Amino acid sequence: MAVYTEVSDEALTAFLAGYGIGTPLSFKGIAEGVENTNFFLHTTAGSYILTLYEKRVNEGDLPFFLNLMEHLCARGLACPQPIRRRDGEALGRLCGRPAVIVSFLEGVSVKRPGLHHCTELGRALAGLHAAGADFPMVRANGLSVEAWGPLFAQAEAQADSVAPGLAARTRADLAVLQAGWPQGLPGGVIHADLFTDNVFFIGDALSGLIDFYFACTDAFAYDLAICLNAWCFDAEGAFHRDRGEALIAGYQAVRRLEPAEVAALPILCRGAALRFMLTRLVDWLNVPPGALVQPKDPLEYDRRLTFHRGATRAEDYGWTD
Amino acid sequence: MAVYTEVSDEALTAFLAGYGIGTPLSFKGIAEGVENTNFFLHTTAGSYILTLYEKRVNEGDLPFFLNLMEHLCARGLACPQPIRRRDGEALGRLCGRPAVIVSFLEGVSVKRPGLHHCTELGRALAGLHAAGADFPMVRANGLSVEAWGPLFAQAEAQADSVAPGLAARTRADLAVLQAGWPQGLPGGVIHADLFTDNVFFIGDALSGLIDFYFACTDAFAYDLAICLNAWCFDAEGAFHRDRGEALIAGYQAVRRLEPAEVAALPILCRGAALRFMLTRLVDWLNVPPGALVQPKDPLEYDRRLTFHRGATRAEDYGWTD
Repeated sequence: MAVYTEVSDEALTAFLAGYGIGTPLSFKGIAEGVENTNFFLHTTAGSYILTLYEKRVNEGDLPFFLNLMEHLCARGLACPQPIRRRDGEALGRLCGRPAVIVSFLEGVSVKRPGLHHCTELGRALAGLHAAGADFPMVRANGLSVEAWGPLFAQAEAQADSVAPGLAARTRADLAVLQAGWPQGLPGGVIHADLFTDNVFFIGDALSGLIDFYFACTDAFAYDLAICLNAWCFDAEGAFHRDRGEALIAGYQAVRRLEPAEVAALPILCRGAALRFMLTRLVDWLNVPPGALVQPKDPLEYDRRLTFHRGATRAEDYGWTD
Repeated sequence: MAVYTEVSDEALTAFLAGYGIGTPLSFKGIAEGVENTNFFLHTTAGSYILTLYEKRVNEGDLPFFLNLMEHLCARGLACPQPIRRRDGEALGRLCGRPAVIVSFLEGVSVKRPGLHHCTELGRALAGLHAAGADFPMVRANGLSVEAWGPLFAQAEAQADSVAPGLAARTRADLAVLQAGWPQGLPGGVIHADLFTDNVFFIGDALSGLIDFYFACTDAFAYDLAICLNAWCFDAEGAFHRDRGEALIAGYQAVRRLEPAEVAALPILCRGAALRFMLTRLVDWLNVPPGALVQPKDPLEYDRRLTFHRGATRAEDYGWTD
């Protein structure tokens, strides 16, 4: 949510010379993206987002993300399309950072999703899983169950300073999840970060998905579990079963869950909550001095975990046969 | 340069219901404006900036700023046009703050102005002074010579911690300026903050002026002096006489300076530099914890003052008969 790198008009003009997208009409840093610097760029040819990848993004992963967006666009999914330069490359360098221009996507994200939004999201998520089916590249999920132990180790000693008992609760969750994490579920490309800010609507219709910088190869149902966490709890931390129902029904209208996925849904939801609690906890305990971004509250996900510990059946999340 | 206030999609929709500018297609916080929160808003009717006025803006001044922008637009000046609601008002409230929607202005600001940019700026500045001639409202310049003593008093004790000798230099400048500040110069509406970020270009042509939130009633030549400070020094603090020449010539192509203004130019330039040095110094010494905005370097203007102390004739700034 910040502009980490300033781009001068001269640097912009020089960068744009490599593209066939006209000359700049407007260029404004936007408060979007926690990891990168993003600019709204309007040229004589259209509207774009120019992204500079800051330190936290691994440059080696960029071809996966960019090729994936291009692949999904080609399959008709509404997501940002990387713009290739005259030399055929999508990835460039600007102000010493890897940089890319993607098409601008209209739409507004919703803060408090209604049932209709959840249904639309479910459909789009299944559409994404289908569109990615023949994407040839693979990227392991670096924030799945194997990563949670090492993440927790970074935060364990200080966890109780954030909330009393957090260390013990997390230790117990971790043991349960490591012992029972499902293997061999249907999978492929997942978004892995489909929070409300990454989903745009125009009126009632979903208009696009953005921010593919956590996308990876993992179980489809885990992506659904992330969405159940991100979309179906309210600000007070209560789960809304009707939203879960709408989300799962929307998903199943496009792609039916297999019995193994249905059975795994509760543990996947619990795991997804632990994943976000842990990364937020580590960020919370390591705010660099002069940080431009407010860290997100890990306890939001600690509260969701309370719900997940008591939810043992897919029905508890709104699945219906 | 930050989003201080988040606006939900629901709050936005409710706010827009009062306007006749269609429904939202896109809504993004932009990193522009130090005092306010600004959003890029694209609707089915066009592109706009939605501004929320944060604490530092005096609400009582808003009618002056909004009426002024409307007046200048009506006179053909390219500046943001406040959009009136269906009830006829331009000023509304959103998320507990005064809020306004203005038309979006295309253009890109230049970081290192060339001579051509300076000429264009000079013309536009004189055009602004002419367009404001029949604006009926008055707003005293709260940051002119009477304000500098009290501002300095807030910073004097700590000034030498920022640069050795700064307190003594400033005390001496202040005495000179208070004793010799010119009165009775031709005046009217001035912008008073026409830094490069507030001036847009498309290609070589100046496309608009923005950010009228320091506009006030004062001497026209003082506005020119502010621009000479903001546009004609380089990053190392050296004055470029050729840029000054281009700026003043551009100005005079539209409105000729009177002999009293020419004579006053050196002291006005020195005063303008002191004004920005002082407000920056006070901000520098009072960065609130958790500030989202990096304070600007007061010493940039301390270095300019070195030049101004030695410049005694309008010719030193590029004026030619």
